[in-house]
Amino acid sequence: MLTIKHQSTIEKAVKANHERAFYSQYPEHPKAYGEQAPEEGHNRFKAQLNTPFSQLLQSGESGWAGEEVSPYTMEPLGITYPLFTADDLVEKAVAAAPQWRNTTVDIRADILVETLERIQSYFFDIAYATMHTTGQSFMMSFQASGPHANDRALEAIAMGYHELNRYPAEQLWEKPMGKFALQLKKNFRAMPKGPGLVIGCSTFPVWNSLPGIYADLVTGNPVIVKPHPRAILPIAIAVSAIQQVLQEKGFNPNLCQLAADTSATPITKTLCEHPGIKLIDYTGGSQFGNYVESLPGKSVFTEKAGVNSVILDSVTDIDAVMQNLAFSVSLYSGQMCTAPQNFFIPAGGIQTPNGTLSFDEVVEKFKNAVTALVTNPKMGAGTLGALQNDTTLQRAHNAGKLGAKVILEGQPLVNEEFTHARGFTPAILQVDSADRHIFEQELFGPVLLLVKTKDTDESIQLARQMAQQHGAITCAAYAISPDTKEKITEAMNSVFTPVSFNFTGFIWVNQHAAFSDFHVTGGNPAGNASFTNPEFILRRFVWVGNREVTGS
Amino acid sequence: MLTIKHQSTIEKAVKANHERAFYSQYPEHPKAYGEQAPEEGHNRFKAQLNTPFSQLLQSGESGWAGEEVSPYTMEPLGITYPLFTADDLVEKAVAAAPQWRNTTVDIRADILVETLERIQSYFFDIAYATMHTTGQSFMMSFQASGPHANDRALEAIAMGYHELNRYPAEQLWEKPMGKFALQLKKNFRAMPKGPGLVIGCSTFPVWNSLPGIYADLVTGNPVIVKPHPRAILPIAIAVSAIQQVLQEKGFNPNLCQLAADTSATPITKTLCEHPGIKLIDYTGGSQFGNYVESLPGKSVFTEKAGVNSVILDSVTDIDAVMQNLAFSVSLYSGQMCTAPQNFFIPAGGIQTPNGTLSFDEVVEKFKNAVTALVTNPKMGAGTLGALQNDTTLQRAHNAGKLGAKVILEGQPLVNEEFTHARGFTPAILQVDSADRHIFEQELFGPVLLLVKTKDTDESIQLARQMAQQHGAITCAAYAISPDTKEKITEAMNSVFTPVSFNFTGFIWVNQHAAFSDFHVTGGNPAGNASFTNPEFILRRFVWVGNREVTGS
Repeated sequence: MLTIKHQSTIEKAVKANHERAFYSQYPEHPKAYGEQAPEEGHNRFKAQLNTPFSQLLQSGESGWAGEEVSPYTMEPLGITYPLFTADDLVEKAVAAAPQWRNTTVDIRADILVETLERIQSYFFDIAYATMHTTGQSFMMSFQASGPHANDRALEAIAMGYHELNRYPAEQLWEKPMGKFALQLKKNFRAMPKGPGLVIGCSTFPVWNSLPGIYADLVTGNPVIVKPHPRAILPIAIAVSAIQQVLQEKGFNPNLCQLAADTSATPITKTLCEHPGIKLIDYTGGSQFGNYVESLPGKSVFTEKAGVNSVILDSVTDIDAVMQNLAFSVSLYSGQMCTAPQNFFIPAGGIQTPNGTLSFDEVVEKFKNAVTALVTNPKMGAGTLGALQNDTTLQRAHNAGKLGAKVILEGQPLVNEEFTHARGFTPAILQVDSADRHIFEQELFGPVLLLVKTKDTDESIQLARQMAQQHGAITCAAYAISPDTKEKITEAMNSVFTPVSFNFTGFIWVNQHAAFSDFHVTGGNPAGNASFTNPEFILRRFVWVGNREVTGS
Repeated sequence: MLTIKHQSTIEKAVKANHERAFYSQYPEHPKAYGEQAPEEGHNRFKAQLNTPFSQLLQSGESGWAGEEVSPYTMEPLGITYPLFTADDLVEKAVAAAPQWRNTTVDIRADILVETLERIQSYFFDIAYATMHTTGQSFMMSFQASGPHANDRALEAIAMGYHELNRYPAEQLWEKPMGKFALQLKKNFRAMPKGPGLVIGCSTFPVWNSLPGIYADLVTGNPVIVKPHPRAILPIAIAVSAIQQVLQEKGFNPNLCQLAADTSATPITKTLCEHPGIKLIDYTGGSQFGNYVESLPGKSVFTEKAGVNSVILDSVTDIDAVMQNLAFSVSLYSGQMCTAPQNFFIPAGGIQTPNGTLSFDEVVEKFKNAVTALVTNPKMGAGTLGALQNDTTLQRAHNAGKLGAKVILEGQPLVNEEFTHARGFTPAILQVDSADRHIFEQELFGPVLLLVKTKDTDESIQLARQMAQQHGAITCAAYAISPDTKEKITEAMNSVFTPVSFNFTGFIWVNQHAAFSDFHVTGGNPAGNASFTNPEFILRRFVWVGNREVTGS
């Protein structure tokens, strides 16, 4: 193996991928990036507004368009992006492919880590871009689209580096045959399947796209990045940074192309069905996701919708639990794929060290915890952020019409910094375990359901069924008895859903840490991808072994 | 990790899987297994004839049936097997699953190696059973269904052991937060997706089934083994050996069930479509294989039909090449999935150290080499074996009607030991590169096509197209110039087909060695499985990670 600039970074990441202890290459605190960085990033973001995004190293566009609107100011960003036809994008990807394919994985990984360093220099530009397209708070925008996304990208690079170095490039095969030995020279090549297509979503335009982009690139595939038309800027900055480095290193920047489109004339299906596209990463709604998964001849990686559950059985500190859950449901107004939606609470209440807390008392405590958080002027707006789009706002508005008992009505969120922000506080509804038609739908956004069950066994059974039939990315559970914990683990793991037990304090079920937590296990209807299990890398290339008689 | 009986065997196999040099756990020479073993095996095989196969540890059968006929004697074996309904088989598999799933992979791997040792004690029983169901020669029957199959099974066990030990079962995750650290206890569980179904074929009933059986079992899945109704006995003996060991070790023998059926009332589709079946391994024709691959909600591993090519450009020793190819096409009468079918030869002939050999001279030499082999009383019948079924015989009979120029007519094979054997010598046909409709079909059995091309570039182009459109498992090429070799490698590898260069002597393109050669790369229409790349294991289970606040 060659000595490469970022070898130590890559090797530490490979080790972290396997140890699954805490590891991070990119500090999550903004202060780690220098005093000037935030303001410089903000200034560049402001300068970008109302101008064409001209930093891409792509040419031959058929037009320019853009339709992003800030969920905080409700004003258009006024940025336009170059548009390309699907044929043009695929042709350029194919043309760029051979040089990259024939570069060793060590060199590819090295260059890709260099692109992450370049993206790092734009972390604050990306943060403001994320905030004003997704509605995430500034802090979440910075962390999710910056260091956390880069860590997930490094995870994919490291897994690729590890897997493509799994077998020797060349090997002598010598079979003893008594008086002589048969000899063959063999070589093993990891042939990329691509080009790849990465389809982004409007809520996590960078975090959900970088893993697929880097998984494609490290395995030797060119990649076409198709962002959601309402959240282009954050990933456009990242793609532009990747293109800069590729060009500086003597590679064709078309190895990573941006494929912006508009709501009026979308190109996603055309790209998906293009015979040249062989790999598709998709984040978004289940209906389109199921379509993508059904396409013949494509290797597909999806993260779709799910219904995440919380099972409440027994706790040691009810107030700490309620504060933790109130934060989990409020964080980015329930617009995270990991946000809990259904809270299963036994009709007989839950156990605490001070005796049983009745169902109604639990409901009251939950309501109070959410209310305290969202009305706290220092916490509310900063935690809830803004709603990315009107559909989510309407869903929150209409939560009272679902047929459930309304425990807490949602209402327009007061945001003193952005008075026009699209914000709405969480609605809390109560239903019975028989009201499946209500709680088995994904109610994306600030709507949560407290489900009164017969007992914890019914809670487990329902949470399991939801995951099996509708998918789940997470499950939180509060239980003291080892038997109950084991029962919950067995039931949820059997439908390939991870369980987080007894979270209180500064750790929330919504968070999946790079290098340690698999994100979307791939075993239930919530999706078939996982950041980053080995398959996320292996399904993007094919091992081919050639043989030759020695001396020939 | 525990110390287990077969730890050293497993660890050596893991190392071999990764080094991909020559490795074998089970010697391929019959003499390695003791002087008495062949006769004892033969006697047990003869004693089994015309009796029910009662060694299985399965009960509750709905009837008994069997329809095997020896391709050597053309007489029914007269053996019957217990029949079970699909529901019954799946129910029993599900019931057996939890204990096995909750056993560590180390213990599972140890027990599974023990089952291979048990199978080894039946190598000769299986050899005679294979010979008299498939029509393979005795030596091929012994090697393919015995040591080679066991080596492939060990390869799968070792890959499973390696992959399921990739992550720690438990890990402490500690995130520094300035003045304190967040701590989570995490555990990572490999949750099996099964039950699995392994569908066998009539030509390689053991070699093609053991890898899927062992890949399912090592990853914690119960498996149902559905052999071809005309080749049940060889795998029935193996399944029975596996059941014996499972029971001895305190496990439910239903973890590995035989699901015999009949041509008149097949149960394969019912099993495939059973909602309880989650994993399917399939070997056989492309039409059924494509159906299996299309089933929603199943993880599928296939080996289907392909059209394997030989590209002839230039040689150093034409006679050595022709002897090698004559053996390759004659071995088991072209009934191997790796057998070459289409020979692309430039109209201008091929280069040798003694000048150009014209197209017609090449054809003549090929014809003579095949004739010399098949008419050699010491070689012919032993190499060609017998034809498994009448469809293959009819195809060989009718080769002259395909519309090609007949270079060598096939004819009934003389077999002095088995005078009634279903045998037919290879037919050699000649076509032009324009006659795609003839050479783009898989002509399974003793039929080969010499295709006259414009030049080597056209040969490469056609071989590439055949692989891309119809699938290919192997490609042989004869070329001296490094540029030509590189061109062939690039073209064939780009459609995920391995190339074997300049094979002469005791090595043939048909052979794929365990621990070194991937078998079916998974990248073209010939199938999506590969013995044994990591995906062959990884797609059978899901990593699920659970988290818990420490001290809770």
